[in-house]
Amino acid sequence: VPLLDAAGVTAFVESVWPGAFEAYEVVDVGDRTARVKLRYHDRMLRPGGTVSGPSLMALADTAMWAAVLGAVGPVAMTVTTHLDIDFLRFVGSHDVVADARLLKLGRRLAVGDVLMTADGASEPCARASLTYSIPPDAAPGAS
Amino acid sequence: VPLLDAAGVTAFVESVWPGAFEAYEVVDVGDRTARVKLRYHDRMLRPGGTVSGPSLMALADTAMWAAVLGAVGPVAMTVTTHLDIDFLRFVGSHDVVADARLLKLGRRLAVGDVLMTADGASEPCARASLTYSIPPDAAPGAS
Amino acid sequence: VPLLDAAGVTAFVESVWPGAFEAYEVVDVGDRTARVKLRYHDRMLRPGGTVSGPSLMALADTAMWAAVLGAVGPVAMTVTTHLDIDFLRFVGSHDVVADARLLKLGRRLAVGDVLMTADGASEPCARASLTYSIPPDAAPGAS
Amino acid sequence: VPLLDAAGVTAFVESVWPGAFEAYEVVDVGDRTARVKLRYHDRMLRPGGTVSGPSLMALADTAMWAAVLGAVGPVAMTVTTHLDIDFLRFVGSHDVVADARLLKLGRRLAVGDVLMTADGASEPCARASLTYSIPPDAAPGAS
Repeated sequence: VPLLDAAGVTAFVESVWPGAFEAYEVVDVGDRTARVKLRYHDRMLRPGGTVSGPSLMALADTAMWAAVLGAVGPVAMTVTTHLDIDFLRFVGSHDVVADARLLKLGRRLAVGDVLMTADGASEPCARASLTYSIPPDAAPGAS
Repeated sequence: VPLLDAAGVTAFVESVWPGAFEAYEVVDVGDRTARVKLRYHDRMLRPGGTVSGPSLMALADTAMWAAVLGAVGPVAMTVTTHLDIDFLRFVGSHDVVADARLLKLGRRLAVGDVLMTADGASEPCARASLTYSIPPDAAPGAS
Repeated sequence: VPLLDAAGVTAFVESVWPGAFEAYEVVDVGDRTARVKLRYHDRMLRPGGTVSGPSLMALADTAMWAAVLGAVGPVAMTVTTHLDIDFLRFVGSHDVVADARLLKLGRRLAVGDVLMTADGASEPCARASLTYSIPPDAAPGAS
Repeated sequence: VPLLDAAGVTAFVESVWPGAFEAYEVVDVGDRTARVKLRYHDRMLRPGGTVSGPSLMALADTAMWAAVLGAVGPVAMTVTTHLDIDFLRFVGSHDVVADARLLKLGRRLAVGDVLMTADGASEPCARASLTYSIPPDAAPGAS
């Protein structure tokens, strides 16, 4: 059971960073997992008519942040230290759903990966892996 | 259904690169997936008494290669162009099982990820993502 | 000598994607290199008062794109297939300069890395490596 | 000035891990940099007649380790937590020189990159970036 569920993550982020989740919907937060939807907007397009790379990168970061918040509770200042992303398929002008899972939640680092799929597609449009640095006193868990 | 199953992948690799799979067992090859086991040997240890990073990297590469061979058939000269790996937990002196899945099988590139778990452990010891370049005429498939 | 210099890259991008470089200044394009500056704006901030990760990711992508355009000429539809980024230090509210260099310019793929430094800082704030897919007929060069 | 020079790094590694550098020559250790040479041996070959990916990965790891040891002194148990590598060109059967530079040396993490070039080649055969976890009490230094 996560320390924060989808509503808890959304409320916490809104309290510390109003508007930060304007483009996102936290669909679900589970046991070291989170599902976050990017709501399509024209400003996310790049030439060729597809959601831009930075928009997908920001989505991956947001989904992993939701999973971390669910697991460690309301800690504002986790910091992304590393992101690796493969762009697999064009998205077009669609919402994109990201599924994040934490693979390690240590005292100092959290590592996880994210799979992103455009609304209605059967194959993923991108994958990412991320590392978060967790400030001292924030993590409940073991290494 | 893969073009080569576990026995087919093993036989093909043995025919083109005898001894290459000496340390490995191809446990299963499925639809764009492969499970490969690294059989522990003392020469894989590094100080601290754990299977070395390069051994895990080679395992990830081998598991993804098995998945690619299953999907595209007996093509010797696929080339790894990119590998990203996170080391999550010490392995100790154990076998390690790698589960690879292809996320994209294009005409020119294949992209996938691999989760590795030490024998008997409940949490993964490493994750990796890889890109393979596929030579012209090798890929049967789609985008 | 690049096929497009800084003014040429800027003019080409403005012609195919008006406004795309609004936040950027292409400072220099050399032999398989490019220097691009991100002009700081408050909307790039994230909590903690520093330029956001996605803003740095977009900068890295832009700098590498400038280096690729300089090397292959005015080709609109190169596609970023992979990005790996390490966030090293907080930027604060400053401009950021990115130095990109192409390490390989093949017929199908271009690979390079980018070092980013906040204005006035002595140490880099981020590093990235990227892979671009180059469409057929676009690349002048060898594999 | 590094805390350990090339001879110091070599002697330290030999004392804690005899034989670990059998395949390597630490050519130089500078201010947060190291140059390490992989001495070619037939067992490093893979089909196609080129030095294998895992051999290059191990070289990158070794070169970064040498740079870290130079910067933090004789600390055995630094741990590689992340490695990202792009394979750019075939090596053939040649020695390979790796140039590592530390981009960040924090209290807990060290991040750097490595450029690898086959003996006699003018262009790099691979690039890598790595993250090391530094145990408490090991790091002398700064942020």
